[in-house]
Amino acid sequence: MAKQEFTICEAGLEDAQALAATLAQVLSETDFLAQDDASAMTVEEVAQFIDNRQNSLNEICLLAKIGSDVAGLLNISAQKNFAFEHIGDIFLAVKKDYWNYGIGQILLQEAVDWAEHSGVIRRLELTVQKRNSRAVHVYENAGFVIEGVKERGIKTRDGEFLDVYAMSKLIN
Amino acid sequence: MAKQEFTICEAGLEDAQALAATLAQVLSETDFLAQDDASAMTVEEVAQFIDNRQNSLNEICLLAKIGSDVAGLLNISAQKNFAFEHIGDIFLAVKKDYWNYGIGQILLQEAVDWAEHSGVIRRLELTVQKRNSRAVHVYENAGFVIEGVKERGIKTRDGEFLDVYAMSKLIN
Repeated sequence: MAKQEFTICEAGLEDAQALAATLAQVLSETDFLAQDDASAMTVEEVAQFIDNRQNSLNEICLLAKIGSDVAGLLNISAQKNFAFEHIGDIFLAVKKDYWNYGIGQILLQEAVDWAEHSGVIRRLELTVQKRNSRAVHVYENAGFVIEGVKERGIKTRDGEFLDVYAMSKLIN
Repeated sequence: MAKQEFTICEAGLEDAQALAATLAQVLSETDFLAQDDASAMTVEEVAQFIDNRQNSLNEICLLAKIGSDVAGLLNISAQKNFAFEHIGDIFLAVKKDYWNYGIGQILLQEAVDWAEHSGVIRRLELTVQKRNSRAVHVYENAGFVIEGVKERGIKTRDGEFLDVYAMSKLIN
C-alpha cells in the first residue's frame, strides 16, 4: 500500500453497507477474532446498530476510512443499566490490507479520548487472545493492563482451547 | 426457619410464576446482586426463558424448591456460537429467608455435576463482588478460582465503584 490518507469518524447510516462488508471480511481473514453474531449482520441490522450508537451516551462506533472504504473499526458497547453503564466494552478490527499502519492504535486513542469526554464511561475493557501478542502490545501502549487470564476463554475452529486476556483501562 | 426439606430440580414451565417472583425478590433484598434485565422479566418472559433452557444442551436453570416455593436458583447461560459454546456463565441467588442453609453450595454442586455430563461445557465462570466474602468462599469451596479482579466492575446505587472478582472452574 502506498502512503494513503485515512480519516477517523463516527459511523453514520451512509456507512452501513461498507461496514457490513468490512465486518464480514475481518471475521473471515483472521483467527484472532471469533465468529460471533456480528458476522451474520445484514446491512439493515448494521444500519440499526449504527443508529443505536448514534443515540447513545455510552456507546460509539468509530471508523477508519480511506475514501468511502472502511479500513477498520472500533466499537464500544455498554449496558443501559445503572450498575454497569460506566463500563465500555471494546471490539477493534482492521482489514488485513491495512495492518501495520498504526490504524488500530489511532482508533484506540480516539476511543479513549471519546470515553474521557463521555461523562459516563469510567472503565474500558476488552478481551484478546493471549497468542495475539501484537494486539496485546497495542492495547498496553494505550494504557490497558492485563487484569486476568481466562483459561479456555475461546475455542478455535479445530476445537483447540486458547487462553484469553481480560484487559482494562480506567477512565478519569 | 425450622428444618425443612428442599429439592433441587430443573425449572419447568409450571415454575414460571414462582421463579419470576423469586427473581424480583432476590434482586430487591441484597446489594450483592445488580439490578439487571432479569429484574424486569414478566411471567411470560420467564416462561420463555425456561423453555429456551429446556431445549438447550449448554444452558440450564436449576431451582431449590420447598414445596412449590422457589428458595433459590442457579442459572447457566451460554452462547450458541462454536467459539464460546463451552463456556457456561453462572448466576446464583438464594432468598434471604433461606440463607445459611447451604442451598447455594448444593445448587453449585448440582450445576458442576450437570456441566460434567453436558458433553459441551468445559469452563464455568461467574462474577462476584469482592466484598461478598461469603459468596466468594462458597465458590472457592466448589473449586472455583479467582482469575482476575475487575476494578470498577460494578457501581452501587450510591454511585460507588466496587471491585468484582472474575472466577472460573475448568470442567473435564
